[in-house]
Amino acid sequence: MTEQKRVAILGSTGSIGTQTLEVIRQHSSEFQVEVLTAQNNADLLIQQALEFNPNAVVIGNEALYPAVRDALIDQDIKVFAGQKAIAQVVEMETIDVVLTALVGYSGLIPTIHAIKAGKQIALANKETMVVAGEIITALAKENRVNIYPVDSEHSAIFQCLVGEFHNPIEKIILTASGGPFRGKDRAFLENVTKAQALKHPNWEMGAKITIDSASLMNKGLEVIEAKWLFGLQTDQIDVVVHPQSIIHSLVQFEDGSLKAQLGLPDMRIPIQFALSFPDRLKSDFERFDFMNYPQLTFEQPDLETFQNLQLAYDALAKGGNAPCTLNAANEVAVAAFLKEEVGFLEMSDLIGETLSKTEFILHPNLDDYVETDRRAREITEQLIKRKV
Amino acid sequence: MTEQKRVAILGSTGSIGTQTLEVIRQHSSEFQVEVLTAQNNADLLIQQALEFNPNAVVIGNEALYPAVRDALIDQDIKVFAGQKAIAQVVEMETIDVVLTALVGYSGLIPTIHAIKAGKQIALANKETMVVAGEIITALAKENRVNIYPVDSEHSAIFQCLVGEFHNPIEKIILTASGGPFRGKDRAFLENVTKAQALKHPNWEMGAKITIDSASLMNKGLEVIEAKWLFGLQTDQIDVVVHPQSIIHSLVQFEDGSLKAQLGLPDMRIPIQFALSFPDRLKSDFERFDFMNYPQLTFEQPDLETFQNLQLAYDALAKGGNAPCTLNAANEVAVAAFLKEEVGFLEMSDLIGETLSKTEFILHPNLDDYVETDRRAREITEQLIKRKV
Repeated sequence: MTEQKRVAILGSTGSIGTQTLEVIRQHSSEFQVEVLTAQNNADLLIQQALEFNPNAVVIGNEALYPAVRDALIDQDIKVFAGQKAIAQVVEMETIDVVLTALVGYSGLIPTIHAIKAGKQIALANKETMVVAGEIITALAKENRVNIYPVDSEHSAIFQCLVGEFHNPIEKIILTASGGPFRGKDRAFLENVTKAQALKHPNWEMGAKITIDSASLMNKGLEVIEAKWLFGLQTDQIDVVVHPQSIIHSLVQFEDGSLKAQLGLPDMRIPIQFALSFPDRLKSDFERFDFMNYPQLTFEQPDLETFQNLQLAYDALAKGGNAPCTLNAANEVAVAAFLKEEVGFLEMSDLIGETLSKTEFILHPNLDDYVETDRRAREITEQLIKRKV
Repeated sequence: MTEQKRVAILGSTGSIGTQTLEVIRQHSSEFQVEVLTAQNNADLLIQQALEFNPNAVVIGNEALYPAVRDALIDQDIKVFAGQKAIAQVVEMETIDVVLTALVGYSGLIPTIHAIKAGKQIALANKETMVVAGEIITALAKENRVNIYPVDSEHSAIFQCLVGEFHNPIEKIILTASGGPFRGKDRAFLENVTKAQALKHPNWEMGAKITIDSASLMNKGLEVIEAKWLFGLQTDQIDVVVHPQSIIHSLVQFEDGSLKAQLGLPDMRIPIQFALSFPDRLKSDFERFDFMNYPQLTFEQPDLETFQNLQLAYDALAKGGNAPCTLNAANEVAVAAFLKEEVGFLEMSDLIGETLSKTEFILHPNLDDYVETDRRAREITEQLIKRKV
């Protein structure tokens, strides 16, 4: 690489954000931090700003603006606050690539701004694609923007497609760890606690995605994300449970050949590849060794116990605003589960009911998506209140 | 593809040759058979010529020339005979790609002729690379010839490297089925029969490569082949035993990411990809399904029991004409084992002794390789006579 890539990190204090900064720290001749944004973690944002000296930082929570501004007063760093500022700062001329690691629906509008400004996207925020994949992919095409997946499964598929983008995909196989409750039945899931659900066997991640992994909704969202990222039909996307999380996903081509990407579960690899593509950069990440994994195992996902995955497949097949509704209901349901207001299995019930109660729109525009998200959240919240 | 690729198949009546014709039969708009050659199987050669109507055929065994000529007398097909004709026919102007599926050392000279004539090479004859990899790769570079591997392991690596040829390889992992004697000890191997050694658990192949698989020499030859095909150092080439033969091999890049190519054991996939690269052609080959392979297992190769693999690693590390000597001794030893003149374990002894008795040349030229091959065969044969 001859010039440094200038990176904006949306959500720099979260799990993906901090790992992205680790990658950049190790490859400071390749990358330069241009923008950092955080929602509430002002202390870490300040610390990151002092280390990486970005052009600008944004604190989402406006109440924390004075603290951030004062801490960085002697630096040549612009400080902004609020949701609108996050969406606007990505348009800065000096940014090459926007890594979006925001949580949930909140990633949508900033990503749209970044794409319209012609920035390349490194996408860790799958919900953006789930909510409005059709609009996002059309916008990206229109603005000649590449969307590099950061999710380990989608990165795996992207890595397998390198050099083969002209070859049709027969199908993809998304691997799923199965989460902490793999093999359990509904009677067991009835009473699982928040603490149990937050213990993922293989990956260290934020709370929302960890709950989604336990409920298999994460895999459902990934199925929808994959549809849009790789231009597939629903029946071209399989899910297989692979408890060791070593094979991160596979592509099957029309000649019957499959390619897979493998490695220890380490998000720094997909983060780095999304930023360094088409090059790979030398890393000192721990290497995979078959002698530590003498068996890789595979099983079918249990769609009867883990209904979220089936709900996601159904929403994808239905199309329109159904995935947006699914996502909104899930975000509210997960938040309620984390507040211990609803049980583990009730999350699927809430999502299913919300899907049946939210107006279906076959060809939504962006305003429709925004309204669907708002309305679906309202419905799920009402359903929760009734239960509590 | 706009124009048909015109293919010469050296060794068209063997296992790889007949599968290549199967691939061409299914994709007759993409490929055209230009030349077919066979050593002894005149009947099948005639049948193939009548079906595919090549420009020319060559029967290696000159005694069979009249039969082939008479059978094709009414066709517009040139008929030649003898080893020299095989080496010359590949220079025909109408050939685009030469698929070389000759057995053992006999592939060397025709491959050199083809490369010098600027033909692309689809290489199923690993011994060519083992014997004279340095010369072959230099010649290919000089003549701007690509060598597309057909061996399933090397094809797997090549498929993983597509789009990443600019990214340095950290290491490759060649998978090995372990053959029919995996897990057996030397006491057991002492008395195994030719019939037992010819029963490969996963692959249907010719007799020579099947014995090489049982003794792990095949993997040793593949290690040497991989060094030259992919420009690696010896310590960048690992072997792992994977009894299911589903993962055909892996590449590890400098970022720590691994890519693998997988599928049911079916040589038609690598054959087809070597001919169709960079495109993949739709096939109706049976598809892989994880539900039929719920466990993929991996273990270290047993180099103490299967000494051939260690001998190959040693020959590669020594360099010069040592791999050529190893290959010649192995060809003679396997032939003797197939004639039941020597036992299974004696093959390694013969190869080891031949290596120590053949003059070592650090920088051999082509004549040196030819002489090394001749001399090593002589030594191994003498050693066998002494035993018998």
